[in-house]
Amino acid sequence: MIVIINGPNLNLLGQREPNVYGQRSFEDYLCELRQRADGIEIMYFQSNHEGELVDAIQKFGFDTSVTGIVFNPGAYSHYSIALRDAVAAIPVPVVEVHISNIAAREEFRHHSVISAVCRGTIAGLGLDGYRLAVAYLLAPDL
Amino acid sequence: MIVIINGPNLNLLGQREPNVYGQRSFEDYLCELRQRADGIEIMYFQSNHEGELVDAIQKFGFDTSVTGIVFNPGAYSHYSIALRDAVAAIPVPVVEVHISNIAAREEFRHHSVISAVCRGTIAGLGLDGYRLAVAYLLAPDL
Amino acid sequence: MIVIINGPNLNLLGQREPNVYGQRSFEDYLCELRQRADGIEIMYFQSNHEGELVDAIQKFGFDTSVTGIVFNPGAYSHYSIALRDAVAAIPVPVVEVHISNIAAREEFRHHSVISAVCRGTIAGLGLDGYRLAVAYLLAPDL
Amino acid sequence: MIVIINGPNLNLLGQREPNVYGQRSFEDYLCELRQRADGIEIMYFQSNHEGELVDAIQKFGFDTSVTGIVFNPGAYSHYSIALRDAVAAIPVPVVEVHISNIAAREEFRHHSVISAVCRGTIAGLGLDGYRLAVAYLLAPDL
Amino acid sequence: MIVIINGPNLNLLGQREPNVYGQRSFEDYLCELRQRADGIEIMYFQSNHEGELVDAIQKFGFDTSVTGIVFNPGAYSHYSIALRDAVAAIPVPVVEVHISNIAAREEFRHHSVISAVCRGTIAGLGLDGYRLAVAYLLAPDL
Amino acid sequence: MIVIINGPNLNLLGQREPNVYGQRSFEDYLCELRQRADGIEIMYFQSNHEGELVDAIQKFGFDTSVTGIVFNPGAYSHYSIALRDAVAAIPVPVVEVHISNIAAREEFRHHSVISAVCRGTIAGLGLDGYRLAVAYLLAPDL
Amino acid sequence: MIVIINGPNLNLLGQREPNVYGQRSFEDYLCELRQRADGIEIMYFQSNHEGELVDAIQKFGFDTSVTGIVFNPGAYSHYSIALRDAVAAIPVPVVEVHISNIAAREEFRHHSVISAVCRGTIAGLGLDGYRLAVAYLLAPDL
Amino acid sequence: MIVIINGPNLNLLGQREPNVYGQRSFEDYLCELRQRADGIEIMYFQSNHEGELVDAIQKFGFDTSVTGIVFNPGAYSHYSIALRDAVAAIPVPVVEVHISNIAAREEFRHHSVISAVCRGTIAGLGLDGYRLAVAYLLAPDL
Amino acid sequence: MIVIINGPNLNLLGQREPNVYGQRSFEDYLCELRQRADGIEIMYFQSNHEGELVDAIQKFGFDTSVTGIVFNPGAYSHYSIALRDAVAAIPVPVVEVHISNIAAREEFRHHSVISAVCRGTIAGLGLDGYRLAVAYLLAPDL
Amino acid sequence: MIVIINGPNLNLLGQREPNVYGQRSFEDYLCELRQRADGIEIMYFQSNHEGELVDAIQKFGFDTSVTGIVFNPGAYSHYSIALRDAVAAIPVPVVEVHISNIAAREEFRHHSVISAVCRGTIAGLGLDGYRLAVAYLLAPDL
Amino acid sequence: MIVIINGPNLNLLGQREPNVYGQRSFEDYLCELRQRADGIEIMYFQSNHEGELVDAIQKFGFDTSVTGIVFNPGAYSHYSIALRDAVAAIPVPVVEVHISNIAAREEFRHHSVISAVCRGTIAGLGLDGYRLAVAYLLAPDL
Amino acid sequence: MIVIINGPNLNLLGQREPNVYGQRSFEDYLCELRQRADGIEIMYFQSNHEGELVDAIQKFGFDTSVTGIVFNPGAYSHYSIALRDAVAAIPVPVVEVHISNIAAREEFRHHSVISAVCRGTIAGLGLDGYRLAVAYLLAPDL
Repeated sequence: MIVIINGPNLNLLGQREPNVYGQRSFEDYLCELRQRADGIEIMYFQSNHEGELVDAIQKFGFDTSVTGIVFNPGAYSHYSIALRDAVAAIPVPVVEVHISNIAAREEFRHHSVISAVCRGTIAGLGLDGYRLAVAYLLAPDL
Repeated sequence: MIVIINGPNLNLLGQREPNVYGQRSFEDYLCELRQRADGIEIMYFQSNHEGELVDAIQKFGFDTSVTGIVFNPGAYSHYSIALRDAVAAIPVPVVEVHISNIAAREEFRHHSVISAVCRGTIAGLGLDGYRLAVAYLLAPDL
Repeated sequence: MIVIINGPNLNLLGQREPNVYGQRSFEDYLCELRQRADGIEIMYFQSNHEGELVDAIQKFGFDTSVTGIVFNPGAYSHYSIALRDAVAAIPVPVVEVHISNIAAREEFRHHSVISAVCRGTIAGLGLDGYRLAVAYLLAPDL
Repeated sequence: MIVIINGPNLNLLGQREPNVYGQRSFEDYLCELRQRADGIEIMYFQSNHEGELVDAIQKFGFDTSVTGIVFNPGAYSHYSIALRDAVAAIPVPVVEVHISNIAAREEFRHHSVISAVCRGTIAGLGLDGYRLAVAYLLAPDL
Repeated sequence: MIVIINGPNLNLLGQREPNVYGQRSFEDYLCELRQRADGIEIMYFQSNHEGELVDAIQKFGFDTSVTGIVFNPGAYSHYSIALRDAVAAIPVPVVEVHISNIAAREEFRHHSVISAVCRGTIAGLGLDGYRLAVAYLLAPDL
Repeated sequence: MIVIINGPNLNLLGQREPNVYGQRSFEDYLCELRQRADGIEIMYFQSNHEGELVDAIQKFGFDTSVTGIVFNPGAYSHYSIALRDAVAAIPVPVVEVHISNIAAREEFRHHSVISAVCRGTIAGLGLDGYRLAVAYLLAPDL
Repeated sequence: MIVIINGPNLNLLGQREPNVYGQRSFEDYLCELRQRADGIEIMYFQSNHEGELVDAIQKFGFDTSVTGIVFNPGAYSHYSIALRDAVAAIPVPVVEVHISNIAAREEFRHHSVISAVCRGTIAGLGLDGYRLAVAYLLAPDL
Repeated sequence: MIVIINGPNLNLLGQREPNVYGQRSFEDYLCELRQRADGIEIMYFQSNHEGELVDAIQKFGFDTSVTGIVFNPGAYSHYSIALRDAVAAIPVPVVEVHISNIAAREEFRHHSVISAVCRGTIAGLGLDGYRLAVAYLLAPDL
Repeated sequence: MIVIINGPNLNLLGQREPNVYGQRSFEDYLCELRQRADGIEIMYFQSNHEGELVDAIQKFGFDTSVTGIVFNPGAYSHYSIALRDAVAAIPVPVVEVHISNIAAREEFRHHSVISAVCRGTIAGLGLDGYRLAVAYLLAPDL
Repeated sequence: MIVIINGPNLNLLGQREPNVYGQRSFEDYLCELRQRADGIEIMYFQSNHEGELVDAIQKFGFDTSVTGIVFNPGAYSHYSIALRDAVAAIPVPVVEVHISNIAAREEFRHHSVISAVCRGTIAGLGLDGYRLAVAYLLAPDL
Repeated sequence: MIVIINGPNLNLLGQREPNVYGQRSFEDYLCELRQRADGIEIMYFQSNHEGELVDAIQKFGFDTSVTGIVFNPGAYSHYSIALRDAVAAIPVPVVEVHISNIAAREEFRHHSVISAVCRGTIAGLGLDGYRLAVAYLLAPDL
Repeated sequence: MIVIINGPNLNLLGQREPNVYGQRSFEDYLCELRQRADGIEIMYFQSNHEGELVDAIQKFGFDTSVTGIVFNPGAYSHYSIALRDAVAAIPVPVVEVHISNIAAREEFRHHSVISAVCRGTIAGLGLDGYRLAVAYLLAPDL
């Protein structure tokens, strides 16, 4: 099983600043992703609450049926050391995804405190970032 | 055609700090990549010279037969505004790739001056980063 | 309808550091405010939870019956990019209010990461700040 | 009596960068403000000279017939410690007003060295900021 | 009554990075602590949610049956001004405890925004820090 | 044997800034500490000289009859890399103690260059800090 | 008409630090400049007063008979946001001139807050800078 | 002749923040100073205008009948490079005086941009600073 | 002979970001410049290679037939200390030219490490900057 | 009694960097100072040892026969918080003296950590600084 | 074999800023060095091109006949992470040499990004630095 | 005579952190060094006291029988401006030596405040650094 965890305000995808994040809702995209990844279960969780995200990382991160976690921490990327600690604490590999190119936005979005404890980061490739992250987790070092 | 451009010291892949960069040479990996991407031509260029990389970005970046450029600027990522300007000047889309997780290494490697003018960045996923970047360039917004 | 949203520890108003925040509870003040603004419904929400505040901003921010939001993010002003993103995502105008003069307090309270995406900010005018913000939202550009 | 003091370049209001400051001249707005505040005298002073502003703050700030000063220090907000000292020296309360949302403009406009010695600050609410400041000074702690 | 409040990821104690935090679960340690402190009730609360921690600090901090609070804010130590404000608002004394020596870890863990409003801090003495904090709260200025 | 080493100006305890450091002399406190710790020898050394403190750390730090050192480096905490090196060089465990809550004082007192090489730090608990440090050194991991 | 505006202490040219600014008075140079630019009126204004310079920029900057302004803000270059705002507010093009090479002098002279709102800057070419600026304003894009 | 030049807000001496600046007006002090310095003419000039202070420094600074200038730049100390340049340009020696101990006040008052081009600085000795500065100028290197 | 040396990406002039750099190729402009400067030979060299630019500066900089060098270091302006050292090493005078107003662009383009060792700098005046630089070098101190 | 305390390397006065510190030994100057201050005992102490200076400040600082201390901390000015604490601890007033104008020397000499706890500071007036400091201590607020 | 690699502008030795670098050409010095080191082959390479230096480090750095490399990166010391990576990648030991005392020159020359990956650094001892580096490489740990 | 002066904790060489500093005591190394340098007297002094090191630098630094000083300031390298001043004050040349490569250790060890006033620095070459420094001092500019 692959788990996708989305952080704050990503429930607004399609509604919020479409010039930055695109016009498609995440649920719509998820449908297609599940179709293409047939045979692989993709679990989805979204929350605006930092604590709920910590709980989710802990829960799925020690679950032996989870192959990997695709994590878009949203705005928490830039200050949540609590999420960083949660990611660092678990054995399941985590790939960080950002829909937009955070290096091309405001200064305070350039740095993610979570990247250093993930396996790697994909940024700026739109919703495709999720697809690529799933592909990597299913077959790393191919 | 997809073009892969590698910056300084990446010719040493497999020899240099294998705990950071792995033990496989890039040529070896390229072979496999070409096999898997059959039907798609993959051009490869490597140089330790900042100026030659600028020349290459300019040459391929205006070439209408090029679908996209996968660019690992190596150490130049962190200071070459000349390469940034070259990438910003061309119409062909560029995806930046880093083999290692630069956010988990020395402080001075955390920031790439080139990311902001690329389409996006993939870091920390090893040589797989190249495969994913090629996949994105061939079929973005899938 | 006007919505007033108060962040963490503002439920303690009247109890907590009265030399900084005054001795009146917010509920008491709200009563009076509602009396003076007769004819206008004033909704009130307080939470110590960042995620609940993001939820509230999203909920009221897309509600077409809401004329404006008066938002005192409390301590979250200084680091919650998640709240900033929520405010930036909604069409309803938001006025930020601080009871105390944050520029005259500790260094780390001088800067609000949320101000830039609000319509404007009123700080240091005590509970009157809420009254003035309501007045503005009901009749801007008067 | 309420005194409104405007700093440098505010004499150009209506002419200068109308997308930032609006298209109305301050004199025009003042007329309306005086009509609405009938019974209350509103004194107005503008200067591009830092020293003349210091003189004015001193003169009105010790005048017992002055209820309060509404002060928009313009560009001097960001470096004039001389104006800060003048405001700190007087007994009459001062409310700082900025027409634009200074937190949403260039970095060097985010901080006002004068805020800390004012009663409070209103920013980003356009010319309405003056109206609200006058309302506060006439009836604080209402 | 003494209250011990633990912040995010401390529920993983014994599981997470045992070279940093040791191999014993907090529940196990708590048992022993309660036995040694016979006659004294020790209340325990843990949460990964910043808001729940603010709520808990407020609830116990105004409870006259509470002699003192031992607080390990975990990762929130480094950025939660909301928790700082909650601690500053209550009359019950708080002692901050860190299991590891935060000064010897990553740069971003060196500073706690909460220390300044606690009675004091004990760091780096392992789980013993809790025992010493309890001893202090029961008999300060001995 | 436990050794307590006090740095500069701590010989003035009881005389100097009693609102910060209390009114009791250290000698007086030491008496009581020795009575309570009966059976355990407590050695005491104070100096205003950085070099003499380095000498003392070296002498006691290699002495196999010493169970632990309680070290209050006073003002040297904030800049003496020489003392840091001395503490790092010795096998005897060192606990750093500060009488006042250094995080709540001037900015330049917030950071101790010595903490990182000590076992841990106790700050802000007054003279009780020494008692707790001794308790820890006599029975760590209890 | 071309207007040359000189800021503080430039009235001392020829007297003050001749190794930095040369030995010729500005009036002397102006004579020659006017002779060479025959047919073109060159207006000259100097003041040590920041406010008078703001007034002058406003006055000439909206004057349709003015082709361009050559502005040497002297020491105000480094901190006068008021002058920056004045230059930004006017339609007449402004070229900034510095007699000395400010990049080769004290650190605090390296940055001009005014450059960004001028058409361009000429620095370090001595009094010739004025001649070249005039030449540019009379025939840009030649 | 000795010239004393006082900057902004020093005309309020005796009225403004007497706990910082004392309760005596400068005129009163000047009387006494002149009596004690009989035989020596003491010229006095005060202005709130930066430009007028530059003018005054230039006028007295090239006057061969002036033995020295005692200069209290007030708030301009901290940012007026224009005044710094004026002082640097003149041959008459200047002694900078601050009534209060600027090193013990707000951070932004610790540094004077003018000190480096004065002969020296006297700070924190109250109005006596003027007396000592005069004494020095009349008989340096005694 | 005058030598014009252009740095990286300036070979793209006319193609690259025309809103910043204009639509004219440098070769086209050079033609006109040579016509106007009849009687004066103008040598032109462009390279994307830092090392080749160092070589060129050295070669022309010691050539006694060269009256001056007009140097646009492009992106190297902001980090090439090697080019700075080359310019500092040669006796021929160098004028630095930037086509765009670098002070009005990204933060990292505001500072040129090369300016301090040039005779002076002309920025923001478009291709005219080259014409003015040539005019200066042919007749400085006119 | 007045006590003069000199810090490190001031025993070399007259020998060391005479262009900065002058050619006269301190002993020679002291002679003259004592002659002029007849009737007043002037005690002198010099040491290169930080600890000895702390001891001296403590010894003289609590001595009721001492009217004041003139203290030149030399290089320790810039980092000795131990000396700062000693000065802050004593009731006898201290005037800090620097022979050279520290604001006009290397960056790291611009700030003294000791100034804030002295009565005031005299810098840049050569050996005369000592004479003026003695004059102040004997008759402050004259 | 010992290899000496010199970076940009070191081909100008003897010509360039002789007060900093001396009047002797490197070739002349090399002659003498070879005579004194008879029996030991000394290879010499100089380039102004960063890429050629990377190539050279790679070529000699994996050559088993090379005992050590003496490397003076010149201006590249301060920014070339590409050269740092090349040095870090090779097994042959490298000693960094600077002819001048870089700590006593401009601020931007104080730090070398290459030092950390060399065996050690010799700076400020003139051309002798090369001799000493060779001596060390031939007989380390003597 | 050559004088070697070692700073704090270097008396522990061989005992302290042998992975950083090696396992040999300095006395043992000194023996060998003296044998190899026969005919040359090598004086040795070590102290943990900053003041004693200042005294030693002064004493040997004016001694005409001393050819040069080899100085390892240990931890004082990073903050002792007093030692810097002592070295700057003496005519005898000083070579700074560090056994370890300080550029490859903790951030706070990268910078030495003493380097700028020494003839040069040798770092990272182990105890050989002393041998090379002696060789340089006996025959500079060879």
